[in-house]
Amino acid sequence: MKKIINDPSAVVAESLRGLGLAHADLLEVVDEPAVVVRVDAPVAGKVAVISGGGSGHEPMHGGLVGPGMLDAACPGAVFTSPTPDQVQLAVQRTDGGAGALLIVKNYTGDVLNFETAAELAAAEGTRVESIVIDDDVAVKDSLFTAGRRGVGGTVPLEKIVGAAADRGEDLDGCLAIARRVVANVRSMGLALGAPTVPHVGTPSFELADDEMEVGIGIHGEPGRARMPVENAEGVVARLLTPILEDLPFTEGDRVLLFTNSMGATPLLELYLAHGIAERLLAERGIVVERRLVGPFVTSLEMQGMSLTLLKLDDELRDLWDAPVRTAALRWGC
Amino acid sequence: MKKIINDPSAVVAESLRGLGLAHADLLEVVDEPAVVVRVDAPVAGKVAVISGGGSGHEPMHGGLVGPGMLDAACPGAVFTSPTPDQVQLAVQRTDGGAGALLIVKNYTGDVLNFETAAELAAAEGTRVESIVIDDDVAVKDSLFTAGRRGVGGTVPLEKIVGAAADRGEDLDGCLAIARRVVANVRSMGLALGAPTVPHVGTPSFELADDEMEVGIGIHGEPGRARMPVENAEGVVARLLTPILEDLPFTEGDRVLLFTNSMGATPLLELYLAHGIAERLLAERGIVVERRLVGPFVTSLEMQGMSLTLLKLDDELRDLWDAPVRTAALRWGC
Repeated sequence: MKKIINDPSAVVAESLRGLGLAHADLLEVVDEPAVVVRVDAPVAGKVAVISGGGSGHEPMHGGLVGPGMLDAACPGAVFTSPTPDQVQLAVQRTDGGAGALLIVKNYTGDVLNFETAAELAAAEGTRVESIVIDDDVAVKDSLFTAGRRGVGGTVPLEKIVGAAADRGEDLDGCLAIARRVVANVRSMGLALGAPTVPHVGTPSFELADDEMEVGIGIHGEPGRARMPVENAEGVVARLLTPILEDLPFTEGDRVLLFTNSMGATPLLELYLAHGIAERLLAERGIVVERRLVGPFVTSLEMQGMSLTLLKLDDELRDLWDAPVRTAALRWGC
Repeated sequence: MKKIINDPSAVVAESLRGLGLAHADLLEVVDEPAVVVRVDAPVAGKVAVISGGGSGHEPMHGGLVGPGMLDAACPGAVFTSPTPDQVQLAVQRTDGGAGALLIVKNYTGDVLNFETAAELAAAEGTRVESIVIDDDVAVKDSLFTAGRRGVGGTVPLEKIVGAAADRGEDLDGCLAIARRVVANVRSMGLALGAPTVPHVGTPSFELADDEMEVGIGIHGEPGRARMPVENAEGVVARLLTPILEDLPFTEGDRVLLFTNSMGATPLLELYLAHGIAERLLAERGIVVERRLVGPFVTSLEMQGMSLTLLKLDDELRDLWDAPVRTAALRWGC
C-alpha cells in the first residue's frame, strides 16, 4: 500500500485537521466525536441539514458544509458509519430552533446510527426528521445494505435540501422536497480498479487487467457483473441504460446529469464520458438542463465513474441554482 | 491500459466536446485547431490572458477559462505542446484591442510554439507579451526543459494575472504583475505511481512497491531522487524544505499554500498532507494567508502530490481574492 499518510488509524483525524485549516472561513472541525460544523452554526430559525457517513468519499460530506448546503457533516472511519454521538453532537451544534433534517445514505450501519441519534436528539427536545437516499439502481441488496445503496444522488439531494432550508422552508417542507429528490434520482457506477482502505492495506477487490465491475458500490461492493473492459461508448451506455429504464426517464424529461469520478479516473476521461452521456440523452429527447462533472462522491483512489440523473422541475432546478458556498461546490455567492 | 476512452488518438477532442457541453455558460470549444475560448470573448479593452500546454493536466487550463482568469486555453495532445496555430487562433478570438499576455510553462516545445504564435499575432497587428513560468525547484534541466519546469505555480499565476486584466491593467501592467508572481512562487512534486499516456498505453515509468520519486515532473519526468516511500510527515518535509530554501521563504513571510493532487491521490490524503504543511510553516513563523487544496495541476492518473508556495503582498492577495468564475475555480461571483 502506497499512501500519503502517517498512522493508518489516524488518517481521518489528521485529514480533518487539514480540512479545518484549509477552510476556516467555512467550517470548524470538532474533535471527539468528530463533526464538521458550519462556522456560523447554529443559524437561528433555519432547519439544520446534516449528513455524514464513512470517510473516503471526499469531498462528500465535509467539503459540502457551508451556506446553502450542509450545516454539519459526521465523518466516520474510512468506509465505516459515523457513531450516534457524532450525529447527536452535530444536531446540538446546528439546531437553530427549527429542527434538523438528517440525510442518510442507505447502508445498514448508517441507518441504525442516525436513527439512534435522532432518538437521542428528540429526547433532548429537538425535532429531527430523516431522509434515506437509495439511488443506486445496480443491485437490490448489497454487502452492507438492505435495499438499494445510497450513492451519487446524495450530492444533488444535499444541495437542493440545503437551498430549501436556506430559503426558509420548515422541517416538513424540507422533508417533502428531500422525498421528491429521492423519488426522482437514480445512479449507477463502474470500477476499473480497486481502492485500498488504509487500515486494511490491501485492495478491496481484484480485477484482472481486462476486467471491469459494472454496478460497483462506493465501498467496492460487488455490482451486477464483472466483464471485459469496454470503450467509453460501451461504459457510458452500460451505466445510462439501466438508470433510464429504472425510473423510467422518457422523452421530454428535464434532467440534471452528474458525471462523477470515483477517484483515480481523471477529468480528461470524465469529460469524455460526460460528452457521450449528453449525446445519448439528446438522442432520446431527454433535456439536460443542469450538469455537474467531477470527483464528488469518491471511493478513495478507486478507478471508475458513476452517472446520476435527477429529473428536474422548475422548483428543483431553482433550488439547484441557488447560491452555495462550500469547499467543493460554490456558486452565486 | 484501462481507461474510459474510445480511440486513444481522439481522447483530447472527445474530452473537449464534453467540457464544452458541461460548461456552455462559461466557455466555447473551437475545433481544428482546438481552442477553449471564454464565451463572451473578446472583452473590449481588456488584456486577453491566454495559456495552454499539453492535455492531461486537467482542470488546467480549459477548466480555468472564464471571467477573472483565462480568456482562452490551447490544449495540445496529451503531454504535448499546443501548436502555434492554436495559440494564434486563441489570440484572434480574444483580442479586445488591449493586446494579449501568453502564460507559458517552461517546456522547450511550449516556449518555441508560443513564441512562433506571438510572432504571427504581432504580424497581424496584435501586441503580444509572454511570461514563462519555471517554478519547479526540483531539477535544473529536465527531460523536456532547459532550466526549471513550470508546474503548480501556473494556477496562482493565471488567477492573479486574470484578475489584474479584469481590473483594467494594461499589457505592461499585467506583465509586471506576472513577473512578480513568477519571481515569488516555487513548487515541488512527488510521485508514488505513474500515469499512462493513452496513445502510448504503458506507464510512463516504473516504481517498485516501496519506492517514490521525489521532484517528479508533471509529465513523469525524473526528479531528484528515487527512494523508499516515507510517511506523510516525511513526504511533506521533502517537498517543503527545498521550496523554502530556494526562494528563500523566511519568518514573517505571508504566503499562499497550494496543496495539489497529481491525480489519483485522494482528498483524504491531500488534506492530511496540507495540515502537515500548515503546521511546518507555522513552526517557521511563515504566515499562511491563503490556501488552495485539490487536484488542479494533474498528470493524468498519476499518484502523488505537489506543494506550491507563493509569497504574498497586499496586491497579490487582493488579486487572488478577486472574483473568478471558471469550471474549476469559482468565488465571489
